[in-house]
Amino acid sequence: MVKFVSVQNIVDLIQANGLEPFLQRLADYVEADFRRWGLFDKAPRVAAHSRDGVIELMPASDGNSYSFKYVNGHPKNPLMGLQTVTAFGVLADVDTGYPQMLSEMTIATALRTAVTSALAAKYLARPDAETMAIIGLGAQSEFQALAFSALLGVKKLRVFDTDAEATAKFKTNVGWLDLDIAYAASTEEAVLGADIITTITADKQNATILSDNMVGAGVHINAVGGDCPGKTELQRDILLRGDVFVEFPEQTRIEGEIQQMEPDFPVTELWQVITGQAAGRKSRDQITIFDSVGFAVEDFSTLRLVHDCIQGTPFYTDIDLIVAPDDPRNLFGLLAPVAGQGAGEGFHP
Amino acid sequence: MVKFVSVQNIVDLIQANGLEPFLQRLADYVEADFRRWGLFDKAPRVAAHSRDGVIELMPASDGNSYSFKYVNGHPKNPLMGLQTVTAFGVLADVDTGYPQMLSEMTIATALRTAVTSALAAKYLARPDAETMAIIGLGAQSEFQALAFSALLGVKKLRVFDTDAEATAKFKTNVGWLDLDIAYAASTEEAVLGADIITTITADKQNATILSDNMVGAGVHINAVGGDCPGKTELQRDILLRGDVFVEFPEQTRIEGEIQQMEPDFPVTELWQVITGQAAGRKSRDQITIFDSVGFAVEDFSTLRLVHDCIQGTPFYTDIDLIVAPDDPRNLFGLLAPVAGQGAGEGFHP
Repeated sequence: MVKFVSVQNIVDLIQANGLEPFLQRLADYVEADFRRWGLFDKAPRVAAHSRDGVIELMPASDGNSYSFKYVNGHPKNPLMGLQTVTAFGVLADVDTGYPQMLSEMTIATALRTAVTSALAAKYLARPDAETMAIIGLGAQSEFQALAFSALLGVKKLRVFDTDAEATAKFKTNVGWLDLDIAYAASTEEAVLGADIITTITADKQNATILSDNMVGAGVHINAVGGDCPGKTELQRDILLRGDVFVEFPEQTRIEGEIQQMEPDFPVTELWQVITGQAAGRKSRDQITIFDSVGFAVEDFSTLRLVHDCIQGTPFYTDIDLIVAPDDPRNLFGLLAPVAGQGAGEGFHP
Repeated sequence: MVKFVSVQNIVDLIQANGLEPFLQRLADYVEADFRRWGLFDKAPRVAAHSRDGVIELMPASDGNSYSFKYVNGHPKNPLMGLQTVTAFGVLADVDTGYPQMLSEMTIATALRTAVTSALAAKYLARPDAETMAIIGLGAQSEFQALAFSALLGVKKLRVFDTDAEATAKFKTNVGWLDLDIAYAASTEEAVLGADIITTITADKQNATILSDNMVGAGVHINAVGGDCPGKTELQRDILLRGDVFVEFPEQTRIEGEIQQMEPDFPVTELWQVITGQAAGRKSRDQITIFDSVGFAVEDFSTLRLVHDCIQGTPFYTDIDLIVAPDDPRNLFGLLAPVAGQGAGEGFHP
């Protein structure tokens, strides 16, 4: 039997653990897997592009477990009342190839994206960073606010969205958080004095959400919204002025902000910073940029945590996804009750 | 909600349709998709190899629907009472990226593999072929026997396996079929006088199940067992003497019998034969070889059939795999009941 973790199960599981403690555990799992990055079987995600969006498969394996995530990105979906991004994932046993768990991952993806941003900022932002600007108040925005608050203690936010409804939604959702939030009237106003700038807008196009003149010395940019071919948020000049850190270069060069740059544009891999093999921030005035696109290893970490958490809980159900004949070679025998009927005669063993 | 088709659902669905009628419908769907081959977004499967096996993802899309299959291949699994091959698949809507159906595919894969073999033989074997040899009586063998009988009227079988238990299982399972079966004492004896030779052994190694001297003029070889790197069944000389037909050359050159040959070894694509763009069998004496490895489009066809068949039936259940907040941008709101508790205080909207 395969364990199935539904949307309601994930909500209940997080409730049972507590949202902030769950985020902290997730951060620990993600960081642990970045620390053993070399062990993973890694590849850029497999994307099927269409007019209005993309469907992607994101596999990863550490040699013991295998995971993949199915995720779509369809910017027009909200016009139909649907999510821009939905996802689910599977964890499997490498030794047998059998799937062990199927889980919702729309919520889980939002959590891991925010956690990875906070993890990068832990190594790249100035240690005394206390104010974050958030540009774009869509589905991912509150998760970013929560992760930076819970994991890094960033309590001061300056936020902006062109859409008043998105802003109102954000305001309602973060009302219970212990945050000091300034609602700015423009991106320029929001980024004023911010130590960290998170860009998380939704348009599927090359946009200039942040231009070079808005970025002061010493800022860390958490560039989350530029995450597929043709979709960027940062003016090219910013990338030339700062130092760029990425998850998996082969994928980020296709999907991230650095799709604007030459194929040999220098970047540093985040795992190298986390393990101390490469420098992160080198000076107070340096501009650091985390060009986040989301990588399969982060989903692997997330599924691993969910799988560890659900053992002995009511937060999953068993589903009959994989056949289990008494004799493994006798697959056809499963159709025995079918066979006779299909042949127009009784079943004669 | 996503429709979930369990193992039991598939068995019941096939029972409701009748096994042979269901195979016939599946053959129609597979042939229809081979006829519009050019429409498909195609790629070799994405494989994660490990010591004892492989886990693969097989995506395909016709621009309206998208499918992928998860499938493993672990030859040692039967020693642990597990299936060598298990699979499940998903059908999704390209316009929204939303998954529509999750289905078991272990049984479905066995059916589509056999159906594709029969489809290839319809175009490649001599029209008067009436005797088939089957070498290897594992999990796929009865499906091949049934498909060739139901779809091509091949009623005479000559079969062999080195394992007496596998042979006994086969004998029991096909007892109800209207077949004339000779149980041979060796591969050499089984292939004597056969018009079609199906090789479907399980060893994950380069083996010589069939050597050149066993293959007479005019034979069609349905080479099913050589289906991953390092696993072949035919002596190289046979491939040089006959004409080889494949599903998707980019994948077959990695996984099929032709992995033994140079990268430019000439092959003909099956869809070209089916659409009349390339010749199939050209003479009675020609040796034709279908180098079957299984391609994602066949799984697409299978999922499409299952999806069409289950509408209005009890053969699926809805599962809560994808979030559905009232406001699509308000993903965080789903955690509202969680949030307060996680922050150690009540939830204040």
